[in-house]
Amino acid sequence: MTVQKLRVGIAGLGRMGKRHALNLHTLTHRADVVAVSSPDQNECKWAMDQLEGVRVYRDYDEMLAKEDLQAILIASATAVHATQTLSAIEKGYHVLCEKPLSIDVAEAQAVVGAYKRSLRTHPNQKVMCAFSRRFDASYREAYEKVASGDYGRPVVFRSQTADLLDTSGVFVNYAKTSGGIFVDCSIHDIDLMLWFLGEKSKIKSLQAIGVTAVHPGLEAINDRDNAIATIEFYDGRIANLFCTRMMAAGQEDTTEIICKAGSVRVNMQGRKNHVEVHDSLGARRELPQYASDRFRDAFITEVREFTECCLENSPLPISLESSVRALVIGRALQHSLMSGEKVLLDEIDSKL
Amino acid sequence: MTVQKLRVGIAGLGRMGKRHALNLHTLTHRADVVAVSSPDQNECKWAMDQLEGVRVYRDYDEMLAKEDLQAILIASATAVHATQTLSAIEKGYHVLCEKPLSIDVAEAQAVVGAYKRSLRTHPNQKVMCAFSRRFDASYREAYEKVASGDYGRPVVFRSQTADLLDTSGVFVNYAKTSGGIFVDCSIHDIDLMLWFLGEKSKIKSLQAIGVTAVHPGLEAINDRDNAIATIEFYDGRIANLFCTRMMAAGQEDTTEIICKAGSVRVNMQGRKNHVEVHDSLGARRELPQYASDRFRDAFITEVREFTECCLENSPLPISLESSVRALVIGRALQHSLMSGEKVLLDEIDSKL
Amino acid sequence: MTVQKLRVGIAGLGRMGKRHALNLHTLTHRADVVAVSSPDQNECKWAMDQLEGVRVYRDYDEMLAKEDLQAILIASATAVHATQTLSAIEKGYHVLCEKPLSIDVAEAQAVVGAYKRSLRTHPNQKVMCAFSRRFDASYREAYEKVASGDYGRPVVFRSQTADLLDTSGVFVNYAKTSGGIFVDCSIHDIDLMLWFLGEKSKIKSLQAIGVTAVHPGLEAINDRDNAIATIEFYDGRIANLFCTRMMAAGQEDTTEIICKAGSVRVNMQGRKNHVEVHDSLGARRELPQYASDRFRDAFITEVREFTECCLENSPLPISLESSVRALVIGRALQHSLMSGEKVLLDEIDSKL
Amino acid sequence: MTVQKLRVGIAGLGRMGKRHALNLHTLTHRADVVAVSSPDQNECKWAMDQLEGVRVYRDYDEMLAKEDLQAILIASATAVHATQTLSAIEKGYHVLCEKPLSIDVAEAQAVVGAYKRSLRTHPNQKVMCAFSRRFDASYREAYEKVASGDYGRPVVFRSQTADLLDTSGVFVNYAKTSGGIFVDCSIHDIDLMLWFLGEKSKIKSLQAIGVTAVHPGLEAINDRDNAIATIEFYDGRIANLFCTRMMAAGQEDTTEIICKAGSVRVNMQGRKNHVEVHDSLGARRELPQYASDRFRDAFITEVREFTECCLENSPLPISLESSVRALVIGRALQHSLMSGEKVLLDEIDSKL
Repeated sequence: MTVQKLRVGIAGLGRMGKRHALNLHTLTHRADVVAVSSPDQNECKWAMDQLEGVRVYRDYDEMLAKEDLQAILIASATAVHATQTLSAIEKGYHVLCEKPLSIDVAEAQAVVGAYKRSLRTHPNQKVMCAFSRRFDASYREAYEKVASGDYGRPVVFRSQTADLLDTSGVFVNYAKTSGGIFVDCSIHDIDLMLWFLGEKSKIKSLQAIGVTAVHPGLEAINDRDNAIATIEFYDGRIANLFCTRMMAAGQEDTTEIICKAGSVRVNMQGRKNHVEVHDSLGARRELPQYASDRFRDAFITEVREFTECCLENSPLPISLESSVRALVIGRALQHSLMSGEKVLLDEIDSKL
Repeated sequence: MTVQKLRVGIAGLGRMGKRHALNLHTLTHRADVVAVSSPDQNECKWAMDQLEGVRVYRDYDEMLAKEDLQAILIASATAVHATQTLSAIEKGYHVLCEKPLSIDVAEAQAVVGAYKRSLRTHPNQKVMCAFSRRFDASYREAYEKVASGDYGRPVVFRSQTADLLDTSGVFVNYAKTSGGIFVDCSIHDIDLMLWFLGEKSKIKSLQAIGVTAVHPGLEAINDRDNAIATIEFYDGRIANLFCTRMMAAGQEDTTEIICKAGSVRVNMQGRKNHVEVHDSLGARRELPQYASDRFRDAFITEVREFTECCLENSPLPISLESSVRALVIGRALQHSLMSGEKVLLDEIDSKL
Repeated sequence: MTVQKLRVGIAGLGRMGKRHALNLHTLTHRADVVAVSSPDQNECKWAMDQLEGVRVYRDYDEMLAKEDLQAILIASATAVHATQTLSAIEKGYHVLCEKPLSIDVAEAQAVVGAYKRSLRTHPNQKVMCAFSRRFDASYREAYEKVASGDYGRPVVFRSQTADLLDTSGVFVNYAKTSGGIFVDCSIHDIDLMLWFLGEKSKIKSLQAIGVTAVHPGLEAINDRDNAIATIEFYDGRIANLFCTRMMAAGQEDTTEIICKAGSVRVNMQGRKNHVEVHDSLGARRELPQYASDRFRDAFITEVREFTECCLENSPLPISLESSVRALVIGRALQHSLMSGEKVLLDEIDSKL
Repeated sequence: MTVQKLRVGIAGLGRMGKRHALNLHTLTHRADVVAVSSPDQNECKWAMDQLEGVRVYRDYDEMLAKEDLQAILIASATAVHATQTLSAIEKGYHVLCEKPLSIDVAEAQAVVGAYKRSLRTHPNQKVMCAFSRRFDASYREAYEKVASGDYGRPVVFRSQTADLLDTSGVFVNYAKTSGGIFVDCSIHDIDLMLWFLGEKSKIKSLQAIGVTAVHPGLEAINDRDNAIATIEFYDGRIANLFCTRMMAAGQEDTTEIICKAGSVRVNMQGRKNHVEVHDSLGARRELPQYASDRFRDAFITEVREFTECCLENSPLPISLESSVRALVIGRALQHSLMSGEKVLLDEIDSKL
């Protein structure tokens, strides 16, 4: 008897693409990475060296045209996420697309529309945005603890995405197409907020403030490197988000869900592993440097579960609508950040 | 040779008054608690039992009239803080007044005015508002580390005051005269913010949101039991405050000062002492239940240093103007919390 | 181009065998689990359900006779470890054998002898005992930190293996064939001691004491459920081992390497993941319950690296001699534990 | 009404003497430091500067002859502890003597004998050895938790005294008269062991090993700078002690009491205060440097409670017999450390 495997194509082989490719290729028993595509010559060379038996394309459309695939993992530049997802949807393929689906709300919504229409003819088709934290063991345990009701109703949600300080200067260039700090960083916290507080909670107000402390170039592109947001819901809950690009010790993504009779917290004491050193400076532990270190296992779980979901036709763990809603909230916060306006929403019309 | 001692009178013998009285009476070598006053009969009885050799008055003014004092510690009900401080200032006495000086900004400013006028005739007179955290060893070390410049400019200030959940119901009654959660709780964080970010930083905007989760009675008195604030400064810094009345495990006052090249944090892992228990529930530590547990040593240091300051005519560690400014900011946040308005301030006119 | 894969057979499908089988089958890209064997009918059934495409045998020798394999992973009962390893060595197969190779020193040494003879005709043959902690990321980082010399010479080695308290009573039955607590538990700490202090350090003395606190049945089989050992080396180093079967919160394996100018510690604050809960009992985290939770990644790394090592003919990470030496030390400690004797060793004759 | 105060004389003004003098003088309301004595001119000068109103003597006996005292605190050189205690006992004075009472067992036992005889004529006389950890809030809470029985019978006691590495070289000179590392350091752990496991538990065996790693001069005076001991009791309990003079980060005194259904631990994560710094080296906290930092509050509590005990004629918190027994055990461990012998004790004759 042989294992049924999902025939996967991968678009984009940057940092995240490489990681997904290796996770699918070597750690996902039921996936078969058939082909990859990247417009970048070095990335193609990397694939030829590292991904034994996988065909390599410079052009995404050519890969789609020539290969007989079942699923596409999209990890290309954000600018082409939506277009590539649409092409794959049209072919009836399952799609796992890196976040965000787009930095443009209308474009993201167009993808949702296309997916909905496609479902009529391909009822088992799976399209999902890759929000890795939902696959992290700690976040999952936190979710179960909150959902158990043991600690009462969750009332206050506090979450931060804190990236390692990068003093190389290359960051500003990347930021240009990122959609801004709330779309690039906090969208993970927004996704978690929707998960923990309930996808249906309606937002009453939101606002954000921020500064440019270590990347002055961000001023010119309407972005900030440190920002704080507050969000108010109609059902009596509040949220507080913090994002920063200047965390000196490493990646520190933390979340607190404060319920009426207890609170559940994730990663309030960041640590890379179980090592601690005591020397003349005191007692010291190191932190994960990047999200890819902190969420290494979550990335593996993500592609494995997506593979299972396609093969078994089981429900998607995250709805595409929720991911688009996270984008809308992220864009609204970015608007507030740059305009200084507090955004007030009518309960009935609240789209956020 | 005998020790020169400061003759102190104490007004108010509630929870804080009792603590200050004992700290001054038994742990402050250079202070001599000569007299205490309280309108409450039980409190007077407590004083007669516990404070050997101290005269006890039911009436504050009578104490002032009959006793030859040098300093007054005011720990009475907030409503009389300002009046009692003014009476003591008039007599040329040093005053250590529990926070807040008043919940009314004008009244607090009147005290500052009176003190300034009194200084002309009593140049060595000391009047200070008791912000205990400035006397805490951890906050002081954090301050020194930030001030050293080793971690670069402080850019983001995050601080929370989290009180133990009290389900007895008596809390709402107390809250009526507290000035609201931002004046009662967050004023400590505001004071720390002014200390760490610089007393002269001008505020550009502030806003707050909140909910009433465990004390529904707060709705009727224009207050909340959980609130979040953001504050923006003209010099490129931001602050984030969180206050809650429903922390299930105990008192959790935490502060992070995030600088450009490092961050300094206070009490991110609350613990009552050095004990940890491992049993079938996991690994567990207990937390201090009240601010009086967490800041026990700070309260002692506070009265000891105030005593030294009066006897040695050394500079006050906290200026009265700064404390009034903290009150003004707290009131503005409380206004934003209840109105939903974001308060924008002109750089020149900014009084906050 | 296709991936070159190592054809592996697995002997034994108990708790560890199942885990190794799944790790090799689904998470080790370059291994191909061809066949498994187990005398236990339920385990065979499990294999038929879970290991798609793998042939299942009730008899180890039959598997060896019928299959064309390259490597054997032995995870059967300890009593047959040596015999099965010898059979595989004779066929020229690579072997990864669960610890201990045997509880009998002479038998273990016979395996080493057979391997050495076999190497003359199969110079690339790899035979290794599975000491999982050497593949744990934290222990590896600790090793690098110590080896860097930054903290000076390692002088004191302290290590503990603490198993979750099992009140079911089944444990005593298992213990009968385990070789005793120092061979079953502490052998990991002994292996680490040899790694961190140097494989060539000669032992001057060793002794152990212990008690039977929660498993009285251990008395009858010459074992204890809590024991402490001290070991003295001729080169001026000392070690302290602690092992227990009654840790209430979970698995707590900790190690400290105390060097002249600093110390490196592993897992002094056990934690299952990044979650912490604060409720009326205090602040609480959960611990891994079993070694299989704590060392989940190490087990995966172990089979992956062993696979690489066989395919690439790279040096083995642990020598078989070292593993037999660990066994000899474990047996000597068990002897001291039961006899109460301190074992003194001559520097020249020291076999330990 | 005036406060009844205990008239105290202090012998010795070294590091501990100064601390005790200040604690009694400025932080112990019911104690009156009447006089101090020290053979050291600089220490006498310090007393004249710092202890207002206190008479200063160069000679202990002269102080005893001239002053009308009620209690003596002895913090002089260990060599004169016993003699000075005996003189004070003869005068019927209460005595708090720094540990150890003596490094000579017979001399210590002579003090116990003298105290017992003196009690016939001075039934309220209090003589106690100063084991500060019994006054530490964390150890007290740990004791209550163990004594509650919630975690079952305590079976394994592990404790360490780890002193900051001192590279100045002055240490060896001090060590000459210290009685050895087990009498100087571990005596605290031994005292805790007797407290936690029961003063009446009889020792079956004990042994110790050690090395000289950073203070080679210790070899010549029959001492070690790192040592490990194991102790076995007749009632089915075991203990493990570790002491070191080379802890690079500071003072790390830790204790674990492992009971059948849980364990209680003290100071497994040493920290000076509530501050943590995150920078490019990772997350870091500082440790207390000296026992005087870690046990600052315990020292204050100790003299305050001793004062109360004398004034109120309440029972002593630690019996003198227990302290002598701790010394006997410490000496026996030091003997084992230097001789390499395991000491076996008969249940009936066990004096330890």
